[in-house]
Amino acid sequence: MQRRAIMLAELSVIPLGKGTSLSDELAEILKLIDASGLAYQLTPSGTCIEGDWDAVMRVARQCHDHARSVSAHVITTITIEDEQGANDKITANVVALEERLGRKLKRSAATPS
Amino acid sequence: MQRRAIMLAELSVIPLGKGTSLSDELAEILKLIDASGLAYQLTPSGTCIEGDWDAVMRVARQCHDHARSVSAHVITTITIEDEQGANDKITANVVALEERLGRKLKRSAATPS
Amino acid sequence: MQRRAIMLAELSVIPLGKGTSLSDELAEILKLIDASGLAYQLTPSGTCIEGDWDAVMRVARQCHDHARSVSAHVITTITIEDEQGANDKITANVVALEERLGRKLKRSAATPS
Amino acid sequence: MQRRAIMLAELSVIPLGKGTSLSDELAEILKLIDASGLAYQLTPSGTCIEGDWDAVMRVARQCHDHARSVSAHVITTITIEDEQGANDKITANVVALEERLGRKLKRSAATPS
Repeated sequence: MQRRAIMLAELSVIPLGKGTSLSDELAEILKLIDASGLAYQLTPSGTCIEGDWDAVMRVARQCHDHARSVSAHVITTITIEDEQGANDKITANVVALEERLGRKLKRSAATPS
Repeated sequence: MQRRAIMLAELSVIPLGKGTSLSDELAEILKLIDASGLAYQLTPSGTCIEGDWDAVMRVARQCHDHARSVSAHVITTITIEDEQGANDKITANVVALEERLGRKLKRSAATPS
Repeated sequence: MQRRAIMLAELSVIPLGKGTSLSDELAEILKLIDASGLAYQLTPSGTCIEGDWDAVMRVARQCHDHARSVSAHVITTITIEDEQGANDKITANVVALEERLGRKLKRSAATPS
Repeated sequence: MQRRAIMLAELSVIPLGKGTSLSDELAEILKLIDASGLAYQLTPSGTCIEGDWDAVMRVARQCHDHARSVSAHVITTITIEDEQGANDKITANVVALEERLGRKLKRSAATPS
C-alpha cells in the first residue's frame, strides 16, 4: 500500500538549445498541467502543482517528455514538499503567512519603496 | 563596472532542527524581504524577488543569516533567472503565458477537474 | 511505449524536525539507493543516480517515503538531466570537462591557493 | 561584522540558446572557479564550492556574468548548506557517510547489480 498523501510540487522544465525565449515550450507544458486536472498555480519561476506522488510524477513526466520531443537536452527540477496533514498547501502556505503578518505578500515593481 | 540588470530570483531558506513547522521563521524572513523595498511575490514554494544581483544577494544573505541565528544548520537555495531586456519578470512571466493561452493559470484544489 | 532513455538525476531529501544533523537519515537513504542497483555517486550536496525515468523515480520515492516515516515534513528535490544519446553522464560529465581542461577538477580545502 | 563561517555551495549555471551541449561554457566557468582559489569539486550535476558567503557569491557572480556574456538568458542556481562548526563539508559530508556505512558510496554504470 502506498500513501495517498497530497503533496506540493514545484516543477521547472528547461529545454536547452531552443533559443533564449522558452515561451512556446512553456505554453505547451502549461496545457499539459491544466489537462491533468490537478490544482496548480503558475509562479514567476515555475509551476506549483498539488496531488499525490503518482499524480504529480505523471504530469511531471508528460511535461518532461514533451520538452524532450522538441529538445535533445532537457533539465527538469521537481521539488516536493510533503507535510503530514497538509492537503491544500498551494493556497494555505501563502494565506497562513499573510494572516500572520497582517498584509498581502506581494509588491509590484512599480510600488515605491 | 558591473551590470545593473534586473534579475528574477527565487529564494528558499530552510532552517533545520526547528520542528516540522517553519511558519515562525518564514514570517521573520518575509519581514526582511518586505523591508528591502524590492518587488517580490510569495509563492506556495518560496519567494520571488526582483532586483539587481547585489540587491538580491543582500536580502538573500539577511534572510540566510536570520535563519542561522535561530538554527545551527540552514539550507538556502537561490535561483536567478537573468534575461536580457527583461526587468519585470515577476509580473510578466505569468502574464505572457496567460495571454498566450487565453486564461488564468491557476486552479484551486476545490475546482472540479 | 515510453522511452527507456538513461537520465542523470540528482536527489536531495531533507527531513525537517530531526535536529540539525541528518546523518542517520542520510545513511538509511544511501542504503536504499545502493540496494536499487542503479549507478550512483554521493556528492557533498546530494546523490547523483543514473537510470531511466521509472527506475530513478522508484528509488526517489523510496527515499522520500523513508524520510516521511521518520519526519512529518520532508522536502525532496529531484533534478533530471536528460540528454539524447548520453547514458553514462555520472562518469562522462566530469571526465569530459577534465579532458578539455587538462586537469583533475577538485581542490581540497588544504590546497594552498 | 559579518560571520566568516565556511559554507558549502552547489553552483549550477545554465546558459540558454547555446545549443544542446554546454561543454564550452562549462569549461570556461570551471576555469573561473579554479582561479578563485576556493576548495571545489566538480560533480556530475554541478560544482561544489567551499568558502565564506562573500567568497562563494563573488565566484558565483563571475560564473553567471561569464554565461550572460555569451547568452542573453541564463539560469543560475546556488544552494548554500551552512552548518555551525563545519568547515570542510566538501570532503567531510561524503567521508562521514562512507565511514558510517562501511563502504565507498559510488557504483559505476558497469558494476553488476
